[in-house]
Amino acid sequence: MRTRPLKVALLGCGVVGSEVARIMTTHADDLAARIGAPVELAGVAVRRPGKVREGISEDLVTTDATALVKRGDIDVVIEVIGGIEPARTLITTAFEHGASVVSANKALLAEDGATLYAAAEQHGRDLYFEAAVAGAIPLIRPLRESLAGDKVNRVLGIVNGTTNFILDKMDGSGAGYSEALDEATALGYAEADPTADVEGFDAAAKAAILAGIAFHTRVRLDDVYREGLTEVTAADIVSAQRMGCTVKLLAICERAADGNSVTARVHPAMIPLSHPLASVREAYNAVFVEAEAAGQLMFYGPGAGGAPTASAVLGDLVAVCRNKLAEATGPGESAYTQLPVSPMGDVVTRYHISLDVADKPGVLAQVATVFAEHGVSIDTVRQQGRPEADGEASLVVVTHRAPDAALSGTVEALRKLDTVRGVASIMRVEGE
Amino acid sequence: MRTRPLKVALLGCGVVGSEVARIMTTHADDLAARIGAPVELAGVAVRRPGKVREGISEDLVTTDATALVKRGDIDVVIEVIGGIEPARTLITTAFEHGASVVSANKALLAEDGATLYAAAEQHGRDLYFEAAVAGAIPLIRPLRESLAGDKVNRVLGIVNGTTNFILDKMDGSGAGYSEALDEATALGYAEADPTADVEGFDAAAKAAILAGIAFHTRVRLDDVYREGLTEVTAADIVSAQRMGCTVKLLAICERAADGNSVTARVHPAMIPLSHPLASVREAYNAVFVEAEAAGQLMFYGPGAGGAPTASAVLGDLVAVCRNKLAEATGPGESAYTQLPVSPMGDVVTRYHISLDVADKPGVLAQVATVFAEHGVSIDTVRQQGRPEADGEASLVVVTHRAPDAALSGTVEALRKLDTVRGVASIMRVEGE
Repeated sequence: MRTRPLKVALLGCGVVGSEVARIMTTHADDLAARIGAPVELAGVAVRRPGKVREGISEDLVTTDATALVKRGDIDVVIEVIGGIEPARTLITTAFEHGASVVSANKALLAEDGATLYAAAEQHGRDLYFEAAVAGAIPLIRPLRESLAGDKVNRVLGIVNGTTNFILDKMDGSGAGYSEALDEATALGYAEADPTADVEGFDAAAKAAILAGIAFHTRVRLDDVYREGLTEVTAADIVSAQRMGCTVKLLAICERAADGNSVTARVHPAMIPLSHPLASVREAYNAVFVEAEAAGQLMFYGPGAGGAPTASAVLGDLVAVCRNKLAEATGPGESAYTQLPVSPMGDVVTRYHISLDVADKPGVLAQVATVFAEHGVSIDTVRQQGRPEADGEASLVVVTHRAPDAALSGTVEALRKLDTVRGVASIMRVEGE
Repeated sequence: MRTRPLKVALLGCGVVGSEVARIMTTHADDLAARIGAPVELAGVAVRRPGKVREGISEDLVTTDATALVKRGDIDVVIEVIGGIEPARTLITTAFEHGASVVSANKALLAEDGATLYAAAEQHGRDLYFEAAVAGAIPLIRPLRESLAGDKVNRVLGIVNGTTNFILDKMDGSGAGYSEALDEATALGYAEADPTADVEGFDAAAKAAILAGIAFHTRVRLDDVYREGLTEVTAADIVSAQRMGCTVKLLAICERAADGNSVTARVHPAMIPLSHPLASVREAYNAVFVEAEAAGQLMFYGPGAGGAPTASAVLGDLVAVCRNKLAEATGPGESAYTQLPVSPMGDVVTRYHISLDVADKPGVLAQVATVFAEHGVSIDTVRQQGRPEADGEASLVVVTHRAPDAALSGTVEALRKLDTVRGVASIMRVEGE
């Protein structure tokens, strides 16, 4: 074993960073044995130097992250500060000055992964980011490496713990969205500003990363269709339950049937209770991967939190350090297929549509005609009185598979019917 | 991209081998793009040369596997013949003559993995074997690499599809073991001689491999406690259902509470229906991994079959080829902890024991005394008449956690009681 230690710089020392530093200290012998050389924490860049950080020597702490990544003696930079800048500049600067990088930064990778990959390749460094998607769940490495000899056709999963916690509460207790969000906030599952989670931005960033790796092409955050869960109502949950389903916020990346394009999207969807994703509770994450030869694989575990995310970071750290000792690099960007990303209108799926209609004869025939005119085939219809609204009935339509654009056209036309008082909800049905 | 192809020799062309060859041909462009060089099938060693093999040129087929691995121009040998010899000699010969090896051979790795690792290291080659455990499910790579910065404390899973199929049928239909085995055989899930599966040898080999990697020590097949499922009865399944459980054949690898030893075992066990492993149906596999920082992870998918196993082999092939181009090698054996493997008597778990006893007062007191004398604490007791056996009752005892040796002692003493007519079944209870 080499005795000269590999030097690690840590950018960010919040929930994840402090856990990384802690494990590097407490498990130093194990890490050294697995890497083949000791690793040494050589510097920690923080925003607020005053804060006491247990177990981290004050001498190591600096507010000058740029100077730290430019030192020249750093072997690996661990970036856990998040956001686009200064993270991007710090990472590319680290590459220029001899370091490989382990990052947990999903936003940056989804926004501008290509720049990072290119800089890593130019300087012959590693860029690893298992922690960017689904916390401790090994997902990036299985997709980049284990399935490198297979053809992935679909990735479908729950990749945001906050929204899963909220939907699980709504499903279990009948609570409305606001009430469930309040509980998530109180328990620390939702941040003070929950926008990134509840509007689906976080899941969309992960979908972009997963789609790019799974299909060997470039998918950016802007390519991902995104709907959050703020408009999911207690009534939607009840409708789902009536169908033997539950509602989950899903990230779905698919290769088109003809193989010539891909899609990536994040939205709430009904899935049957018999589907393994239906039983993913609280803030857990789970991701299905469908590949041509492997079939259906599922990966499940805690999708966030300091320790689980640190586990993923440290796994990458060991790999990057081993590569460094072998004077090699791991897999870089693989975007050779250059498959275009199709718009949401091209996605083919099923729909659950709930309409408030006039309670009189002929309405169903009118509605059915609109679906037929748009080429959307109906699977089932359920009609029921609405005691609370005199003269109105509720019509719940579940369609066969149809392009999203055809469904949008159908809904637009339905809204124009005199007998349709309102479209109470539209939700996609997945996992069948 | 390099234009000179990497040369691959395939040892064995059965269900898995022919699928590997097929995908290497149909997905040649993808494999080349991902590796950075084309791969070429340079030879296929088979036992019976006469058999027509679709898509494989006759010129490539040979019965002289030794000559093939000695050719000197082979970059990677894929070994899918199974068994100890000639596989072991062929693999070590391949290392000597310049090739790295991808193997699906669980029996050999469990029996003598150390020899293979040592030969690979001596000659600077790679030894990859994702396909040896749980087919297409990425498990070896996540344990060896993703969790390399974490401390794994437990691996618990269903790693044999045949036995899961049999138990699933018994649970679903009330069928007995023989009937369920017949169905498995008819559907191709069980081999003509099912011994390796139903007696737990296959699962035990996988447990040895998983334990060694998870705990960074050496665990051989002989170190694994093993009970098959041939003695599981329809009555056991009913007892399990009555407890809100189902019966699964589990492979369980654990680090002792004090951290100074490990255990590995395979046996039927009751697990609660609420446990995710309870819903693993038919021939699917699923493995739970519990690590200190990551928490509970689960990996699920098809555990066997030509295409899924080929997917795992080809993922390894891509990795080994990349390493070859980079003139590097991936992770080798990691057995630095040298933790000893404790015997089954040291395993601490819970038990479900069904006794046939005399139906008269004082029996429960006698039985309870025997448990107490052996330090086994009782959780619940259920007593019921046995209309089919006059003067007898049935006593079902579920214990708290206790060492297996204490339980064995208890059962031995119970058998000596006059009032105990027989021990109808003993089954461990896991996953709580």
